[in-house]
Order: sequence, then structure tokens, then C-alpha cells
Amino acid sequence: MNLDVISWTPHHTVRFLDQTLLPKQEVYREAATIDEMVEAIRMLRVRGAPLIGISAAMGLAAAAAREAKGGTLTPEWLEDAAARLAAARPTAVNLAWAVRRMRAAAEPVWRGRKAPAAVVLALRDEAQRIWDEDAEMCAAMGRYGAELIPAGATVMTHCNAGALATGGIGTAVAALYTAHEQGKGIRVVSGETRPLRQGARLTAWELAKAGVPVTSIVDSAAASLMAKGAIDLIITGADRIAANGDAANKIGTYSLAVLARAHGIPFYIAAPRSTFDLSVSRGADIPIEERDAAEVDAAPGAEVFNPAFDVTPAEYIAAIVTDRGIVKPPYGEGIRRLFD
Amino acid sequence: MNLDVISWTPHHTVRFLDQTLLPKQEVYREAATIDEMVEAIRMLRVRGAPLIGISAAMGLAAAAAREAKGGTLTPEWLEDAAARLAAARPTAVNLAWAVRRMRAAAEPVWRGRKAPAAVVLALRDEAQRIWDEDAEMCAAMGRYGAELIPAGATVMTHCNAGALATGGIGTAVAALYTAHEQGKGIRVVSGETRPLRQGARLTAWELAKAGVPVTSIVDSAAASLMAKGAIDLIITGADRIAANGDAANKIGTYSLAVLARAHGIPFYIAAPRSTFDLSVSRGADIPIEERDAAEVDAAPGAEVFNPAFDVTPAEYIAAIVTDRGIVKPPYGEGIRRLFD
Repeated sequence: MNLDVISWTPHHTVRFLDQTLLPKQEVYREAATIDEMVEAIRMLRVRGAPLIGISAAMGLAAAAAREAKGGTLTPEWLEDAAARLAAARPTAVNLAWAVRRMRAAAEPVWRGRKAPAAVVLALRDEAQRIWDEDAEMCAAMGRYGAELIPAGATVMTHCNAGALATGGIGTAVAALYTAHEQGKGIRVVSGETRPLRQGARLTAWELAKAGVPVTSIVDSAAASLMAKGAIDLIITGADRIAANGDAANKIGTYSLAVLARAHGIPFYIAAPRSTFDLSVSRGADIPIEERDAAEVDAAPGAEVFNPAFDVTPAEYIAAIVTDRGIVKPPYGEGIRRLFD
Repeated sequence: MNLDVISWTPHHTVRFLDQTLLPKQEVYREAATIDEMVEAIRMLRVRGAPLIGISAAMGLAAAAAREAKGGTLTPEWLEDAAARLAAARPTAVNLAWAVRRMRAAAEPVWRGRKAPAAVVLALRDEAQRIWDEDAEMCAAMGRYGAELIPAGATVMTHCNAGALATGGIGTAVAALYTAHEQGKGIRVVSGETRPLRQGARLTAWELAKAGVPVTSIVDSAAASLMAKGAIDLIITGADRIAANGDAANKIGTYSLAVLARAHGIPFYIAAPRSTFDLSVSRGADIPIEERDAAEVDAAPGAEVFNPAFDVTPAEYIAAIVTDRGIVKPPYGEGIRRLFD
């Protein structure tokens, strides 16, 4: 499943599929400036932890090219642009990680006092590397994750951790594509994922397009399917994983993990190394984005609490699928080894 | 909270608030025939286990009056009409229960070979009795249920078990209104209840209208609120309770019950005696309605599984609030005693 999710245009801007309009419309938009890319990330036109890292990197390279043309590309501009991109959304660490890589790539070029064009080239190369590496990490997660999926299994996933969330075939959904291609005859249950319905709109869309049998359910129906023995395992992506294995992911992930435990079903997380944040020791320290009340659309007079993410404690996670292999509990040591 | 949910019109039809349009529009419709009332029940224009029982009874009385006027009111017509109403939706037992009472009320009048007008009067009286009794049962559930709610508690509920679901102040929500009126300073968390959003549209609407502080969340956010200690207890209604205490209720109720258990939070059900079905020994034997895939609105190519209800095993239910008092486990004996 290689979707045309993001690309460079010939005129040095970033073209991306506006995911807010899927599945009804496939509309592509362009970002040429930092403001345009920040808007796209904030409004979830591009979303998914790995993809927002890639988008920020490509957006920074595109905007820098534009500045260079106007003669206004300076280290100060780059610092400010990087900070604005990193602050677009708070929870997924891939955003800060990608922006940090971009600043590091520009730094030796500035130090070497080369022409702005050289900085632009370095930024563009680094953004492309971030994208390429993500695609490779997706493929690796697919191979490792598929090992956890028995033939004939019904696998539940939540939100969208697929091709639409990454620069490749996904994180959690990569395991599903790979198991499907291996002829394991799997079936996927996709939780709707209110309020923005990424499961019903995006995961169901890309799996159906790829010919993987997929059934959509409302989020609250997962428990009764588990009670019936209709779900063999659950695998989701993550937006940030702390050093102890606690994982922040789309609201409802923790709910599924607790329900999986109660029904004796294994619950897995899949994420590339760019999603781990060793500077955060435990999940309680991960900032959780609260989004607009209008997303929930409650009756007038009611308050709304609309957290975009929740934290699943490591104790509920049977294993974490990474691009470097499967990490099992206890997580502290295994996670540290990923970065050796 | 006395909402104008259903009423008789001067011309012997049933007027009801179309709940599918709330909270955006308050539109009243009329049912004069069996077909019209069956449509209203099927499309959830009237909904909630007690209210569909009342609606079926009132609809039967109204349609019988019309038949009598046309000279076509016969025992055969009544049997057929009763059967069609009882079959409008399968899970809530209040529907079959109310229709059975209506047939029983007509029976001695037919046997006495009285004029059709006497049958119409008997039907109308019985429908009014079903409604009045429900309102009284709601008030009683409110008093008993409020005993379970500590001062200052945050209480979660699911779907709508309020004034909009009954002929009075609700079942589960009756306890919330009563605790609020007792000055306990409670706060309510209302789960959205996908796919038809009765929590966000209806429960939040009627609680806010009554001045009870209410916060709407998406269904999958309940677990993370429980983990934070932000929910003190959960109370929901039921559509059918088996002889052993297993309770069918809106999809997602079982999910909340399992999550409540995992977080050490008491989970309660509130239901009048008309919701108990002693002919069903356990929850697995309760028919579960599956509704149209369009309600979930998934991407093309995906299948949809859309059960309207799930079954919460008795072991997850800390107590059942009834109009005759609070029943505690083990339920078999306590439930039998309700009908002595």
C-alpha cells in the first residue's frame, strides 16, 4: 500500500493529501510557507506521528528555499521557523525530533559560511532522508509486527497508524499489510476513533483499497466483540513512548488496553525509534493535547472535555514493535538498547 | 425535569418530540396509525425502553380510536396491530410488556360484547395508566438511586436514560436529578454514545436544561478519566434485564462496566420492573438488535458491525436500582422478590 500522501512539487513546495476530507474527497493542497504547514498540522490535514515529523521537515525545507530566493534566509529565520513547527502540536514527539534533525543538518553549513543555496540543499536532503528512513522503518515494523499475527487472526486497531500516518506502509497497520501479503488470511476490526473518526474514515479506507478485509465498529463496541472471542489481538501506533514504555496514543487506546487485559487478549504498540522520547521517564509526564469542544458537538449548555490522547501504562503492553525488532517487558533496558 | 416528550392530542392522536432532531431542532410529530407509530419507534424518533413501551400503548389506543370511527375495530385488528408494535424493535422488553398489558385490558371488554367505543376507552385508560405508573416508577428510582450518590460525586452515565427515555424523570438520570435537587452538588459525565449520539445530543441537553452541571466526552475517553480518579460511580439504564441480573443496554455499557471494575469504581443499573424479563434466564438469550451500517458511516469497501446493545453480566453490576428499591447481588432471589 503506497499512497500518494505527501510529495515535493517541481516548484519547491510540499504537496499533501488533505486527510480531513477523506474518504469522501481526495483533495491535494500545497504548503509553501511555515504558516501553511503549521496550519496543515494543527488542522490534521496531515496527521499521524511519523507523517507530521516528515511534513514539518519538508515544510521547513520548502519554506527555506522560498526565503533563500527572497534573500532572507538567516540562522535566526531558521530557528524561529523550527520553533513554530515544533510547537504546532504538543504530544507526538516525532515533530520535535524531525525539527531537531533539520536544525542539526543546517548547522555545519552555516558554520562553513556557505551560500544560502547550500543550506537549502542540506535541508532538502535531510527532509528526504527523514522520509526515506521512515519508509524503511515502516517496512521493518511490518516484518517484525507480522510475526505476532497468527494465520486467520482477527486483529483490532485504533485510529490510523497506516500509510496515511507515515512516509511508508504505516506502523501498526504495516504489520497488517505484511501479514495480509504473507497470505495469513487476516481480518481487521477498525475502531471508529471519535471524535475525528480516523479509524472509520482513514484506516478502513486504506485497508479496503488494499484488499484487506476490514470491519468498522464504533469505539464502544470493542468490549462486546472481545467478550465474544471475536478479537485475537490488538495493535495500535503511538505518538510518544516514554523511557519506561508508557505510550501516549490516540484517545481510546488506553481503554482498549485495559479491556484487552480483562479479556486475556494481547495488546501491542508499533512505533519507529523516532517516537521514543528517552527524556521523558514515564507517561504521566507526556503533554496531552486538548482539542476544540466543537469536535465533540455536544448539546448547548454542556461542557466538553476533549483530550486527543491518553497514556497506556507499560504494564498493559505485551510488546512494542519497533523498526529494530520487538521489545518485550521489562521495557527500560530494551528501549535503551534500541538507541545503542 | 418534566419535558413535553409525548402527549395525547384533542383529536385522539399521539404527539411526540422527534428525538432524532435534538438538540438542534425541537420538532413535534403526530402518530395516528400503527404504521406511523412503528416508524417512529424504528427510526428512534421515540426511544428509551420505558418510553417505547408508553409510545406503543398510546399508539395502539390512538389507532384503535381511528378504527372504531371507521367501523373496523375488531379483535383481529387489535391482535395484528399489537404484534406489529411489539416487533418494531427486538431488545427492549418494555415494548412487548406494554403491548401485552394493552391486549389484556381489551380482552374483558371484547368478552363482554360491549361497543367498540368501550374498547377504545379501555385501551386509552390502560395506556394512560402505563404512562402514569412509569412516571411514578421514575420518581421512586430517583429517590432510591440518589441514595447511592455521595455529595460532590462525579457520576458517569451512558446513552440517555432520562426524561427523554421515559414517561417521567428517567431511570438512571432520575437518580442524578434527585441528587441534584437534594443539593448534593454533583457533576455528570455524559458519554457521547456513538453511533446515534444520545449522550451528547439528549442527556447533555436535558441535564443542561435542568441546570445540572454536565460534561460531554467521547465514549473512548471514559477509561482515562477513570484512571485519573475523576469518576466516582457509573449509572446507566437498561433495555432488558434477565432473571439472573444480566442487563442488556446501549452498546458501550458493557465496556464501561468492565472498565469500572478495572478501576475499582461501582457500576449501577437503574430500571423499572417493566424492564425485567423473568422468561429469559440469562443475558446471552436476550436478542440484540443490529442496526443499519449507515449509522457508523465507514469508508466505502469496509464492512460494518453495528449492534445497538450489549449485555453486561450481573457480576459487573454493583446494584440494580428499581422502583421497588435497590437490589443487590446475588440477583436471582432479589429480582424474583420484586414481582411478589
